[in-house]
Amino acid sequence: MFCSNCGSNSIQEKKPDGDTHFRKVCSACDNIIYENPKVVVGSVCTYENKFLMCKRAIDPQKGLWTLPAGYLENNESVEEGAIREAYEEAYAKIKINSLLAIYSLKHVEQVQILFHSELVDLNIKPGIESLEVGLFEWSEIHWDSIAFPSVVWALNNFKERQNLDTFKVYNNPI
Amino acid sequence: MFCSNCGSNSIQEKKPDGDTHFRKVCSACDNIIYENPKVVVGSVCTYENKFLMCKRAIDPQKGLWTLPAGYLENNESVEEGAIREAYEEAYAKIKINSLLAIYSLKHVEQVQILFHSELVDLNIKPGIESLEVGLFEWSEIHWDSIAFPSVVWALNNFKERQNLDTFKVYNNPI
Repeated sequence: MFCSNCGSNSIQEKKPDGDTHFRKVCSACDNIIYENPKVVVGSVCTYENKFLMCKRAIDPQKGLWTLPAGYLENNESVEEGAIREAYEEAYAKIKINSLLAIYSLKHVEQVQILFHSELVDLNIKPGIESLEVGLFEWSEIHWDSIAFPSVVWALNNFKERQNLDTFKVYNNPI
Repeated sequence: MFCSNCGSNSIQEKKPDGDTHFRKVCSACDNIIYENPKVVVGSVCTYENKFLMCKRAIDPQKGLWTLPAGYLENNESVEEGAIREAYEEAYAKIKINSLLAIYSLKHVEQVQILFHSELVDLNIKPGIESLEVGLFEWSEIHWDSIAFPSVVWALNNFKERQNLDTFKVYNNPI
């Protein structure tokens, strides 16, 4: 690994003055390289009693099914990011309904912020990151070919919340 | 700026194949440098009818008052991060109560995830990043010396939610 500030390859792990965490610090120029979790934004997108699912065209988990979701970009809100991802992956025009869940996925250094959204019209088709996209009733979802555990969590959380008479935002299942 | 993969300084803005965004790409080794928003976690921390506030010992906004909050680190959940920040900034032991707000601060490339927390006991004192910490009734808060607009948003959102009979999670004020 090289320092983005000076190009030196003398990066060492140390705890900067006043810091509580070990960081990657450049021994040549003292630049501190902070590494933090990234935000994934997306949605459980429904149309009547159906769910929008995307079959991944890219790794990881190519060929398996996921929700429209992806990394939040600079200069967009979390809601705008979820809308963009639905369009990129399925050309889906969606309306954000409400926050559904915040999952902390420590092992992959991600925070997933997932909404419930509604599909505005039926014009969907695979984007460049999808092999196939579709609307599925609950029982038709390809439960045996889901890309990531958090996809199942979010779908189940959505289903559970439908039966509550209060609003709730979920986090990681225990 | 130098490439963290090969140390070259030939970074150019371009749109990688299959990407929708311009990225910093190393012309020497094709490494793509992704830049994404960071997550700030924190809480409106209450004890009875008082609010925990911290006077910043560091820039930006040194000398002004803020909530216990800071960047989420790798390998912690958003809740754990909010708990850690309260301890680091005010030696405050807190209990997370509920999610309060998600603010998208595009101009500083931050997503702020703020909880309502409760202070477990009165043993607070300034951490290394604080000049002073204290518990303030609403009217005693140093409203004329608040470090960041989102501190005011969060306090107001908390106050508003106290008067609701439903749960609600806030985002940026319009």
